[in-house]
Amino acid sequence: MGYPDTTDAFAVTDIKKWSEFTRKDLPLKKFEEDDVDIAVDACGVCASDIHTITGGWSEDIPLPLCVGHEIIGKVVKVGKNVKNLKVGDRAGVGAQVGADLTCNNCKADNENYCPNQIDTYGAPYPDGTISQGGYSSHVRVHNYFAFKIPDSLETTLAAPMLCAGLTVFSPLKRLGCGKGKKDDALKMGAKEFICTKDKDWHKPYAFTFDVLLNTADATDKFNLPDYFSTLKPNGFFHMVGLPDKPLPTLMAQDFMPSGSYIGASHIGNRPEMEEMLELAAKQDIKSWVETIDISEKGCKEAVERVYNNDNVRYRFTLTNFDKVFGKRA
Amino acid sequence: MGYPDTTDAFAVTDIKKWSEFTRKDLPLKKFEEDDVDIAVDACGVCASDIHTITGGWSEDIPLPLCVGHEIIGKVVKVGKNVKNLKVGDRAGVGAQVGADLTCNNCKADNENYCPNQIDTYGAPYPDGTISQGGYSSHVRVHNYFAFKIPDSLETTLAAPMLCAGLTVFSPLKRLGCGKGKKDDALKMGAKEFICTKDKDWHKPYAFTFDVLLNTADATDKFNLPDYFSTLKPNGFFHMVGLPDKPLPTLMAQDFMPSGSYIGASHIGNRPEMEEMLELAAKQDIKSWVETIDISEKGCKEAVERVYNNDNVRYRFTLTNFDKVFGKRA
Repeated sequence: MGYPDTTDAFAVTDIKKWSEFTRKDLPLKKFEEDDVDIAVDACGVCASDIHTITGGWSEDIPLPLCVGHEIIGKVVKVGKNVKNLKVGDRAGVGAQVGADLTCNNCKADNENYCPNQIDTYGAPYPDGTISQGGYSSHVRVHNYFAFKIPDSLETTLAAPMLCAGLTVFSPLKRLGCGKGKKDDALKMGAKEFICTKDKDWHKPYAFTFDVLLNTADATDKFNLPDYFSTLKPNGFFHMVGLPDKPLPTLMAQDFMPSGSYIGASHIGNRPEMEEMLELAAKQDIKSWVETIDISEKGCKEAVERVYNNDNVRYRFTLTNFDKVFGKRA
Repeated sequence: MGYPDTTDAFAVTDIKKWSEFTRKDLPLKKFEEDDVDIAVDACGVCASDIHTITGGWSEDIPLPLCVGHEIIGKVVKVGKNVKNLKVGDRAGVGAQVGADLTCNNCKADNENYCPNQIDTYGAPYPDGTISQGGYSSHVRVHNYFAFKIPDSLETTLAAPMLCAGLTVFSPLKRLGCGKGKKDDALKMGAKEFICTKDKDWHKPYAFTFDVLLNTADATDKFNLPDYFSTLKPNGFFHMVGLPDKPLPTLMAQDFMPSGSYIGASHIGNRPEMEEMLELAAKQDIKSWVETIDISEKGCKEAVERVYNNDNVRYRFTLTNFDKVFGKRA
């Protein structure tokens, strides 16, 4: 076997040995006329990968499993219905590869909340095949979840945008933190650093922020009322990181002093992905990444350093896929 | 002593005997030129009263304490700075009687989130006096927190609007459930009854609601992910009832399937109060209330039946204050 029936993947086979990657062929879903096949050139390493392979979110994961959902590569095959990509294009795939595209959520550009969504890895397709991620030679996805990458973006820097980037872009956009607030963002955001380990850190910031976008997946260790106290009335504490453990105990009363809300979101939709990529291209926004060549050893190093929070500045991109898998396009 | 130095109040003196009311004189704050004195004619019985006197929210309450924050009566004295009310007017007071009125929140009509707000009862004024509620002959409040009651509203029916009414009106308004959705409200809201004790009650309502306004103060017993599943993407589960106990344990993950938020609000602001009262007057909206004459026995019956959830349809208003306190205006 081999492509086009299978993908040549670095897979985890045991959650107890979650950083041991074994190279093996894993089945791809049956090719349909809406599908796009991509020969992977680079894949970001997301904390989701580590939560998944360690069993932190759930011990019930299908093994062997190949993770990775910040994928960029070259299109090597397209179905008859595919209009947005052609063979030879550079394309990206994020954390979602399927949805029914017919429900009310999908019709309202909320396909990231479709009840029939399919995650990029570890999720069953209707035919029973398990989706496999980008630590591998090829991925096969519905074209709605494959994105042309603007020419000016470098592959290794654009890869982490496809999950991490979109996941923060979407709530910022939906909560109204648009470009109209650029001056505020410069003035109040990017220029100031608040160390939340300092005693009484929150007190000078009472009723200051419209939105707190919490990208940490350590919210279980937060004193949430301190954070809520820094929100303007009816502000949002918005989470995009998912700890393994529950949130700290909350009282309804904790929300009252500022009439605040806590919530979380799931990646973003296709228009948001396109807008984010265009914005990054136009504004020359570059992710700060460290690259590692893909291999059993490279995958192991990447996931262990993310797990141990070991000085990663700030995302890993697995790269040099051609060296391992050969030129596939 | 007596009015104008004190109010003649039905007070609780011991949280272990929280339904035993003793009639006694309690000090009123020093009269200032922004203040309004009201001879109380009726007072709603709010679940907050019961949470407070039982020590459910906090055992640290100032005793003796007179509760009640749905107050209607006649204005008997106004300070020189008072423009919105005159002696003889019928006026109402809700759950808030003070704020600095100078901070950013106050300036943005968020005085209900002012860090220096003063609750209608049990809160210290800057001069050390403890605020006392409406189970009494008189209240003294800053005029910003006293409201002229439209002529067409009956006193006993309007009283519960001043806390309970405003507290649900404010989040509905702020979350955009305005009159533009009247048809939807009739179609989707008022005409349908969902029993959340039924097995799988939530399943037919997946992704259905923009906002769930939760008026129960029993959220600690809810299976919250079931409720979240009935919200449209980025919808709100909004609480206005405050249980004594913490919310059920939540995972950040619980919010992801619909990108939802949970939060709570604190009453509403002055413009919202005025809009609600006008709306009720114009649309001839009547609260459903049961009246009880004020007395030690009447107060006891009211708070015990609210505590025991004993067939109250749907609010109590304490009334016939003149019979006990005499004609004070």
